[in-house]
Amino acid sequence: MVETAAVKTYGSIEEVINELAARFGERLSVAHSVRERFGKDESFHPSSPPDAVVTVLSADEVQDVVSTCARYKVPVIPYGTGTALEGQVCALYGGICINLQEMNQVLEVHAEDLDVVVQPGVTRKQLNTHLRDSGLFFPIDPGANASIGGMAACRASGTNAVRYGTMRENVLALTVVLADGRIIKTSRRAKKSAAGYDLTRLFVGSEGTLGVITEITLRLYGIPEAITSAVCTFADVASAVNTVIATIQYGIPIARMELLDESMIDGVNRYSKTEFEIAPTLFLEFHGSEQYATEQAETVQGIAEEFGGGNFKWTGNTEERNRLWQARHDAAYAAKAMRPNGTIWSTDVCVPISRLADCITETQEDIKANNLLAPIAGHVGDGNFHLAFVVDHEDKEEVKRAEAVHERMVMRALAMGGTCTGEHGIGYGKIDFLVAEHGEAVSVMRTLKQALDPDNIMNPGKVLRV
Amino acid sequence: MVETAAVKTYGSIEEVINELAARFGERLSVAHSVRERFGKDESFHPSSPPDAVVTVLSADEVQDVVSTCARYKVPVIPYGTGTALEGQVCALYGGICINLQEMNQVLEVHAEDLDVVVQPGVTRKQLNTHLRDSGLFFPIDPGANASIGGMAACRASGTNAVRYGTMRENVLALTVVLADGRIIKTSRRAKKSAAGYDLTRLFVGSEGTLGVITEITLRLYGIPEAITSAVCTFADVASAVNTVIATIQYGIPIARMELLDESMIDGVNRYSKTEFEIAPTLFLEFHGSEQYATEQAETVQGIAEEFGGGNFKWTGNTEERNRLWQARHDAAYAAKAMRPNGTIWSTDVCVPISRLADCITETQEDIKANNLLAPIAGHVGDGNFHLAFVVDHEDKEEVKRAEAVHERMVMRALAMGGTCTGEHGIGYGKIDFLVAEHGEAVSVMRTLKQALDPDNIMNPGKVLRV
Repeated sequence: MVETAAVKTYGSIEEVINELAARFGERLSVAHSVRERFGKDESFHPSSPPDAVVTVLSADEVQDVVSTCARYKVPVIPYGTGTALEGQVCALYGGICINLQEMNQVLEVHAEDLDVVVQPGVTRKQLNTHLRDSGLFFPIDPGANASIGGMAACRASGTNAVRYGTMRENVLALTVVLADGRIIKTSRRAKKSAAGYDLTRLFVGSEGTLGVITEITLRLYGIPEAITSAVCTFADVASAVNTVIATIQYGIPIARMELLDESMIDGVNRYSKTEFEIAPTLFLEFHGSEQYATEQAETVQGIAEEFGGGNFKWTGNTEERNRLWQARHDAAYAAKAMRPNGTIWSTDVCVPISRLADCITETQEDIKANNLLAPIAGHVGDGNFHLAFVVDHEDKEEVKRAEAVHERMVMRALAMGGTCTGEHGIGYGKIDFLVAEHGEAVSVMRTLKQALDPDNIMNPGKVLRV
Repeated sequence: MVETAAVKTYGSIEEVINELAARFGERLSVAHSVRERFGKDESFHPSSPPDAVVTVLSADEVQDVVSTCARYKVPVIPYGTGTALEGQVCALYGGICINLQEMNQVLEVHAEDLDVVVQPGVTRKQLNTHLRDSGLFFPIDPGANASIGGMAACRASGTNAVRYGTMRENVLALTVVLADGRIIKTSRRAKKSAAGYDLTRLFVGSEGTLGVITEITLRLYGIPEAITSAVCTFADVASAVNTVIATIQYGIPIARMELLDESMIDGVNRYSKTEFEIAPTLFLEFHGSEQYATEQAETVQGIAEEFGGGNFKWTGNTEERNRLWQARHDAAYAAKAMRPNGTIWSTDVCVPISRLADCITETQEDIKANNLLAPIAGHVGDGNFHLAFVVDHEDKEEVKRAEAVHERMVMRALAMGGTCTGEHGIGYGKIDFLVAEHGEAVSVMRTLKQALDPDNIMNPGKVLRV
C-alpha cells in the first residue's frame, strides 16, 4: 500500500561522517551491525540502516549533529529505544541516526509541583523506579519500556490513558533542537498557559520530523492510597463495551479498562501461564482512597452484571495485580508465541466509543472470513484497540490478506468518525491513511513541515511523504 | 509598554466593503456605533473599530468573507461575544470584523461518546442549558458567558480547570477557515489519536491569528451524582496555598479550588451582599458519588485544619451553591464596584504551585507599597491567579504605577518558571511579555504564522507583532 516515495537529493554523507567522526570519535559508528540495529524498530518493517549512528550526551551535541547535517542537507533520525511500531526509526533516505539512549538523566523532581524534568533517553520504567520513594508516579505506559523522548515524539499512551490522558496531556514543556540547529523551549512548568501558540503540542506526536527533543517536563501524580484490580468476562464484545460506556458516563474515574478478546485471552493463558476463562474479558483497575477504590469497583461490578458480566474477580494484592498487568503488557509477545515462526504485525485504531463494539465485531468477522490469526486487545475506555496479526511473512498471499483486512479495519474506523491510529503513530506504515483521515488538513501539516524544515532533513519520509 | 507596531500596508477596504455589501446586504454594517462596539472587548483597551462588521450564518459565508479579504489583503477579525481581556477583538489595522454570534446552533450531541459539536457563537451557558436534560455538562467556565469559539480561540479555562482541564484538553476537533479561504477539519471525534501533527492544539489559543473557527467538537462529562461546596478561611495566603498543594498531592480530584484575598472578599461582600469573614478564603467544590463527595470534603477539611484553616462551611444545597459561585464569578464586577468611577484592569499569571504563595504575597506587598486597589482571586489549584486593578484611568500617574506593578508581577511569575497569562491570552496587551517568556520560540511562532498567513490578514497585531 505504501507507494515508493519520490527520490530526493540529499548532500554528501561522506563529508558529514568525516566531520562528525572528528567531533565524536568512537561515539560515531558506521559498523554494519550497529547501523542495522538502529535502522529497525519493533515492527515488521524491515531495517533501513542509517549511514552512521552518533551517540550523544547533551543538547549541545544534538545541536552539533543537526547543524552539521543541515549544512550538508543530510537526514537526521532520532532514536530512543527503537520500540516504535510504524517504522519511525527507519532511515529511509540514509543519514545520521542520533542515539539518545545515553541522555538518560532524571534532571529535576519537583514534588510539590507534581512535575519532573528528564532527558529523552530516560525510559518509563527507569523514571518510575527513580520516583518510587517520592510517592509519585508517571502513568503513561505503552507496552514496551520506551524512552520518554520517543513517547513524546510519538504521542504515546497506554492502559492508563483513560484516566490520566496521553503524552499530549502529560508533557508540560519540551526543549527541541530545530532543523536549523536552533534550540528552543516550547513552554514552562506552569500547569496551564494561554501565552501564544501551543508549540509543545505541535512537537508532541511529530515523530522527529520537526525537531529533536532533548528535554521533557512531565506531569506526575501521587501514587494512589489504594489500587484494586479486577477481571470480568462477558458473553460478547458488545456487552463488555456497553459496560465500559456506562462506567464512563457514570463519571467513575477508572484507571484502566482493557478488553481482550477470546483469541487474545487464549494466547495470554499459554504465554503467561494464566488460567483466564476463554471469553471477551475486561481487565480493570481502580485508584483512590481505600474506601473510594472499593466503591468504584463495587459500582462497576454492578454495571457489569447488568450487561451479563460474570466471574468478577477483584484483587488488592500487589503481587497478583502486577502479574495481571504484566500478562496484559505481554499480550503482543503472547500473540507472537501462538504460532511457530509467526511474526507480529501490531496495529491500532481508535473510534468514538459508541461505535467500538461494531468496529471490533466487524473486524473479528473479517479476520475469521480471511482465515487469519489476529487477536485483539484494547484500551477500550478510549475507544482504542489493537490488532496483532500473527503472520508468516514468507507467505505472500497471507500477508496480502492481512493487508486487506488491515486496510478495511482502518477505513471502517475512519467511516465511524475514528482515527487510523490511537497511539502507534504514522511513521511510514500509515502514511497513506493519514491522507484518508485528514484530507486537506494534511496540506496544512505539510506547510508547517516546510516552514520549519525546508530541506526536509528531519526524519524524512515519516508522517508526510518526501 | 506596548510599543507602536510598524505600519503595514493593507489593500483597498472600499472595494472589499462594496463586494461584501453586495453579498451580505443588511448583514454588513458600517455604522459608527456598531463598529465601535465590535472593536472593543471587556478590558480597559480602547475600542479600535473595524471598517465594517459582517454577520455570518455559516462556514461558507466565513469562507466568502475571508476569501474576499484575502484577495484585497484586508484584515479579518473574528468576534464571538467580545468578552476577551487583552484586546483580542480590537481592529488595530482596520479591516472586516466577522460577527459569529448568529452561528449559535448546537449541532450534534453524542451522549454515549460524551461529546458535542457546536457552532462558534454558542455560549457556554447556552450549551449547558441545552445539555441539561441529557445529564451531561461542559465544565469550562471563564467568568463571562463567552462563546465556545472565542473560548477555543483564546484557550480559556476557569474555576473547573483543576479537575477538567482547559480548552486545550477539552476541544476534540475544530473546523477552521484558513487565511487563503480553505476549510479544514483538524481532527475527528475519537478521544485520542497519534495521526499526524496536532492541528487542533495549534488553533486552540491562536486567538484568530491563524484562521477563523467555524465548528468545535467538545468533550462532555456526566453531571456528578453529588456536588458539595465549601468555604474555609486562613490566617494568610501561604496557609491557604499549602492546603491546596497538599490536597492535590493527596490525589483528591477536587473540582474547584478558588482563593480570594481579603480585599476581594471585602468587595464580594459589598457587591453580592454576602457576609464572608474578611480573610484569605478558599472556595471549594467536590464532585462524585454522595459518599465520595463527602469523603473528599472531609479529607480536605482535615488538611485545611492542619494549616490552621477555620470556619469550614459546607453545603450540598443547590441554591446556596449557586449563590456562592455566582459571587465568585462576579468577582471582577465586585472589584469594579469598590471604587466609584473606577475601571477594571484584569490580568492574570500562572506559576508552579510551589511558588504561588510567594508570587501572590510579593504582589500584594507591591500593590500596598504603591497605594493601589487590586484585589486578587485565583484558580489556585492550577497556580493561576488574577489581579483586578481598580484604577482611575484619568489619573495618568496612578495608571503608570499600576503598569509598573503589573510588569513586576509578570516578570516575577516568569522568574518563578511561570507564564505571563494562564487564561486571558496575549491579545496585544501582553505581546511584549510573550517574548520575555518564550524567547527564541517566538520566532518559531512567527514562522508558523507566516507560513499559514503570509499576508498577515488574520487578526493582525495580536499574539505576534505585525
